[in-house]
Amino acid sequence: MPRPLKLDPDRLFPAEENTRRIARALYAEVAGLPIISPHGHTDPTWFSTNANWSNATELLLSPDHYIYRMLYSQGVALDDLCVPSKAGMPGTDPREAWRTFAEHTYLFRGTPSAMWLSHVFGEVFGFDVALDASTADHYYDTINEKLATDAFKPRALFDRFNIGFLATTEGPQDDLSPHHAIHNSGWEGRVVTTYRPDAVIDVEHEQFAGAMKIFAEKTGEDVYSWDGYLAAHRKRRADFRAAGATATDHGHPTAATANLSKDEAERLFRTILSDRWTPQDAELFRAQMLTEMAAMSVEDGMVMQIHPGSFRNHNGGLFESHGRDKGADIPMRTDYVHALKPLLDRFGTSTDLSIILFTLDETVYARELAPLAGHYPCLKLGPSWWFHDSPEGMRRFREQVTETAGFYNTVGFNDDTRAFLSIPARHDVARRIDCGFLARLVAEGRLLDWEAAELAYELTNGLVREAYKLDQQAPAPVAAAA
Amino acid sequence: MPRPLKLDPDRLFPAEENTRRIARALYAEVAGLPIISPHGHTDPTWFSTNANWSNATELLLSPDHYIYRMLYSQGVALDDLCVPSKAGMPGTDPREAWRTFAEHTYLFRGTPSAMWLSHVFGEVFGFDVALDASTADHYYDTINEKLATDAFKPRALFDRFNIGFLATTEGPQDDLSPHHAIHNSGWEGRVVTTYRPDAVIDVEHEQFAGAMKIFAEKTGEDVYSWDGYLAAHRKRRADFRAAGATATDHGHPTAATANLSKDEAERLFRTILSDRWTPQDAELFRAQMLTEMAAMSVEDGMVMQIHPGSFRNHNGGLFESHGRDKGADIPMRTDYVHALKPLLDRFGTSTDLSIILFTLDETVYARELAPLAGHYPCLKLGPSWWFHDSPEGMRRFREQVTETAGFYNTVGFNDDTRAFLSIPARHDVARRIDCGFLARLVAEGRLLDWEAAELAYELTNGLVREAYKLDQQAPAPVAAAA
Amino acid sequence: MPRPLKLDPDRLFPAEENTRRIARALYAEVAGLPIISPHGHTDPTWFSTNANWSNATELLLSPDHYIYRMLYSQGVALDDLCVPSKAGMPGTDPREAWRTFAEHTYLFRGTPSAMWLSHVFGEVFGFDVALDASTADHYYDTINEKLATDAFKPRALFDRFNIGFLATTEGPQDDLSPHHAIHNSGWEGRVVTTYRPDAVIDVEHEQFAGAMKIFAEKTGEDVYSWDGYLAAHRKRRADFRAAGATATDHGHPTAATANLSKDEAERLFRTILSDRWTPQDAELFRAQMLTEMAAMSVEDGMVMQIHPGSFRNHNGGLFESHGRDKGADIPMRTDYVHALKPLLDRFGTSTDLSIILFTLDETVYARELAPLAGHYPCLKLGPSWWFHDSPEGMRRFREQVTETAGFYNTVGFNDDTRAFLSIPARHDVARRIDCGFLARLVAEGRLLDWEAAELAYELTNGLVREAYKLDQQAPAPVAAAA
Repeated sequence: MPRPLKLDPDRLFPAEENTRRIARALYAEVAGLPIISPHGHTDPTWFSTNANWSNATELLLSPDHYIYRMLYSQGVALDDLCVPSKAGMPGTDPREAWRTFAEHTYLFRGTPSAMWLSHVFGEVFGFDVALDASTADHYYDTINEKLATDAFKPRALFDRFNIGFLATTEGPQDDLSPHHAIHNSGWEGRVVTTYRPDAVIDVEHEQFAGAMKIFAEKTGEDVYSWDGYLAAHRKRRADFRAAGATATDHGHPTAATANLSKDEAERLFRTILSDRWTPQDAELFRAQMLTEMAAMSVEDGMVMQIHPGSFRNHNGGLFESHGRDKGADIPMRTDYVHALKPLLDRFGTSTDLSIILFTLDETVYARELAPLAGHYPCLKLGPSWWFHDSPEGMRRFREQVTETAGFYNTVGFNDDTRAFLSIPARHDVARRIDCGFLARLVAEGRLLDWEAAELAYELTNGLVREAYKLDQQAPAPVAAAA
Repeated sequence: MPRPLKLDPDRLFPAEENTRRIARALYAEVAGLPIISPHGHTDPTWFSTNANWSNATELLLSPDHYIYRMLYSQGVALDDLCVPSKAGMPGTDPREAWRTFAEHTYLFRGTPSAMWLSHVFGEVFGFDVALDASTADHYYDTINEKLATDAFKPRALFDRFNIGFLATTEGPQDDLSPHHAIHNSGWEGRVVTTYRPDAVIDVEHEQFAGAMKIFAEKTGEDVYSWDGYLAAHRKRRADFRAAGATATDHGHPTAATANLSKDEAERLFRTILSDRWTPQDAELFRAQMLTEMAAMSVEDGMVMQIHPGSFRNHNGGLFESHGRDKGADIPMRTDYVHALKPLLDRFGTSTDLSIILFTLDETVYARELAPLAGHYPCLKLGPSWWFHDSPEGMRRFREQVTETAGFYNTVGFNDDTRAFLSIPARHDVARRIDCGFLARLVAEGRLLDWEAAELAYELTNGLVREAYKLDQQAPAPVAAAA
Repeated sequence: MPRPLKLDPDRLFPAEENTRRIARALYAEVAGLPIISPHGHTDPTWFSTNANWSNATELLLSPDHYIYRMLYSQGVALDDLCVPSKAGMPGTDPREAWRTFAEHTYLFRGTPSAMWLSHVFGEVFGFDVALDASTADHYYDTINEKLATDAFKPRALFDRFNIGFLATTEGPQDDLSPHHAIHNSGWEGRVVTTYRPDAVIDVEHEQFAGAMKIFAEKTGEDVYSWDGYLAAHRKRRADFRAAGATATDHGHPTAATANLSKDEAERLFRTILSDRWTPQDAELFRAQMLTEMAAMSVEDGMVMQIHPGSFRNHNGGLFESHGRDKGADIPMRTDYVHALKPLLDRFGTSTDLSIILFTLDETVYARELAPLAGHYPCLKLGPSWWFHDSPEGMRRFREQVTETAGFYNTVGFNDDTRAFLSIPARHDVARRIDCGFLARLVAEGRLLDWEAAELAYELTNGLVREAYKLDQQAPAPVAAAA
């Protein structure tokens, strides 16, 4: 007999009765607020075409490395889960892949994936039995049926999820046509892009050469000269802003910044374009480009997001066969205090610049990030990220950051996901954990109840709107010719 | 008047009432399960000879660096505690040493040693008064009396402790005769060895030259040629497997691995055997040997345990006078993400290989180890170890590891101890903390009660049996001629 | 309508009812104990002159970088807060500065500053409404009125705060005349100095050259010869001891120590005095001087405090305009295990030496500091410091340190503050958090209630008195001619 699926209405609140009572009251005030998602990786064509998704496996399993990495770690082959390789989709029957997934759901016990899945299955699809081997087909058929209906089209779900703002991520190579199509469609959902130029900044990126070529085509600039290269960035930033973007995003291996003279930078750029660059050159160029991006942000007002610290594609064999973003990125120790100094020496006291810092190295929360954000006007802290976007991870973030940086140097939650259906689940987890944290402060006499209520709103909607400048007068989006 | 000694039946459970109720119920189901101890340092001759231990000081104090390091840190001389130096046992009267220990038990307040000692005194010896200066002689006499009885012989305690499996640790120099004797004795206790080749791998180990000599004698191989050296390892691994071993153990300063060509490895080996090696050579050779050991594990199926990160013999003066393992090992920052890559690039996707990683650097739990184990099929995480084998240490392990690696990429508890009488105490602490952790997840709506019950069993017996391959058909132990 | 200001009598105790009950009982026993403040930065002239403070802004805002750094991080200019720059006090009306502060008090929600401020406002000044924009003038006027009264003179507050011991910090350039004046005044308050020689040890310190000059004058030694330099230190240490000092303090960038031969040290010293030193020379000289200071401590019995790990004056522009100690120091990753070895190899087993270690890098609590202090007789651990002198910071310290080092290798609390009025608040926070931690151990069956009561006293008064040798027969302070 299948097990019932039932979401505990008090889930994630602290168990202690008085604290839980306070948390519940705080949560009641913010549970219904719109979802603001200023950083994520959903596909904008979902919203421009508004086409139905095909099936459970292709929507929920094949693209979600949070899910398949866990099964892979226990010896399940990616082919058996319909994860595409460089050769394309494996021949596996999607229903068989779904069954394999269903047999292994016990692996997720105690993980945020388990909570997200329960929320998606229970709240989005209305299941009242849990997914396991015995219910795999029932799930597969029901999900597919629902996905074929109007109520499960992307825009319908966007509205149902009460999403007030959704940012996607595109590169300098992208023509932003889905965003223009969304805008021109008359649909009122606010879906905007984010400028993520890694592929034309990181010469160690396997797509660098190709991306540079498109970068040149799209901008008409001589991107192989230093001045032309910078001008091309300016043009594309303007395109992105015109399409509604308020932020840029930079996913570098480290947080290193540099502050070279124009001559030095130009010389380095020439080396990068030659065949003679070393890993040190590549690192220095990325470092210099963070500072160049900061300079442009001072000009155009775009918020910078810096996401360092991931060792990409750690599994050499898997990268060979399956390419990037297959669950094989591993966090590394990351320094900020030395790394950011060159940039901060140039722009640290600017109130025109806003930089949001993320980390995969929790040891820097209390030691480096909170002291930096609690001092520099231009710095704010992004939420606990990726592997740390979890109940315990969020708690550690608040516990280790708040006492030095306060709440007001943080920027609310972001979901950072390509798993669209999990967005409400992820924001709900964050709201619950934040309310639980505030409730503990109230229960311990460290915060008054009315302060906690104000903060619950700020952590959910207020700070994120302000940090990402969502309510500032933006240039009207135009359907720019790419 | 002496203070009563009384163990709280609810000890180590969370204080919150509902959570405690859940923890208590979970614990009731696993408290009586057999002890599986797959990694430890007890002396196999205890079980081969089954001789009575001599006295309280020599059993409980002199050999236990957890205990005497704390007194030493407060200015008590090791001689006064009957800790042997290079010159042998000091002349101190063991009873006097015991009194000195008894006067200082307050130092252990808040430490796991205090809990282990209370368990040993209360449960194993049946004391109902606490140990302090006033009860020192009563304790000393009573313990010595009991140790002289049949009920306190090693095998009797092994049975009374309900130990289902106990691994010891031996090196390539060992002849394993106690293990053969145990097997040939007809006693049914399952005591097996573990292959720990550090002394013939680490040229910086003070016993390297001597160990190599015995290695040559025991194997009949030319261990001073690279091929002979590897062949000798293969022979001894086979001997160990024949004596029941299912695992190897590697206690290196770092987790570095390497993947040299055969030529490079051979050249490095020649350097190591010369007088001209540098610390870098020593490190690279250890690194290469981890990969060689992994290659042999792929062949023979032995589970690899890697325990890096201890700065051995930090106290130079003490090492001079007293030698190694005297409580002067200090953990260091340890990298895994770069260190393991060479080995993983070669064997990372192999499902024939199983590597259990330990650490003394808790900062890698969430940042490196959980992401690695949550991806690579060959990696699993050992429990919180050594200094972190403690209530808070175990909680941090579960809190920081579970959300990314899940429970099923962990391998249950191991006691890693030479203090045989504390084994039930240590496993009891682990079971209580794990049940408390599971109870919190249930109380916070993150896990269902039946899932928690299944997991309590897995964390106690299931995962350890599987990870260490205890139930796989092993080659029948033979009384090999050493 | 202004919000009421009311301190929760149970603040900072764990919310769980049974644990809170235990914490409350423990706290009741230690709440009234005298404040022992063995490490801080108050101004001794306050106590020698006993002059009234001038106004709220100059006492509570302008000098307190904990406060103004938070406002600065949110874009408030330091000039607007009456923070002095190199050019002197800005022209801002102190009342206006106070209003700006009052408008921004919400920024401190969830920070220890909020708790300290509430305590100062409620307990020291007797306010019953909270500080915000609407009460700014009421606060400003009331505080100024009170500060003008006898009851708010420094010595009156010292007595009212029940301070049993207060250490200040002076350098080798100081003549200690305020301390001599205090002693000669017949006032019974025990205010003593601490020897902090950083300015004559750290050649990278911007005051090095000037400090050396005064060092020479004050001692009559040839401080530009190695022997004379060491002799000068000995003289000044004797002066400080004569003025009641029991400790030295060393605020180096890292914990590096060295153990050079006399020749090497002498050569290095000559390099330091030349123009040719490198950052590596500066670091090595600081390292060597820690060992020299340890050698002198073995001679004269002064307790050494080592406070490494701060990247001083990180904000280059601000350092240029405002100088040091303006809230722009940022913690860095800090190693102890390798760094301290040279010193420990020389003095590690000495029971005549006592070194108290502090850190800004919490990752070393469990990994390095607790294992070191739990072994070496000369090492003890200072409390959680600076950014970590906070409820969560203190909890992490106890949770991560106690299991390996025990309580008895720690040294109680110190406030490390120049904000005199916050001293009772800070000690109160520490007592509450410690009692809460002990209460949790009792509630979880890990400590008995009478043990917890003994420990509450030790953590509050006992350990600090012993660690700083406050009750040892000191040489009678003399009014030495400077």
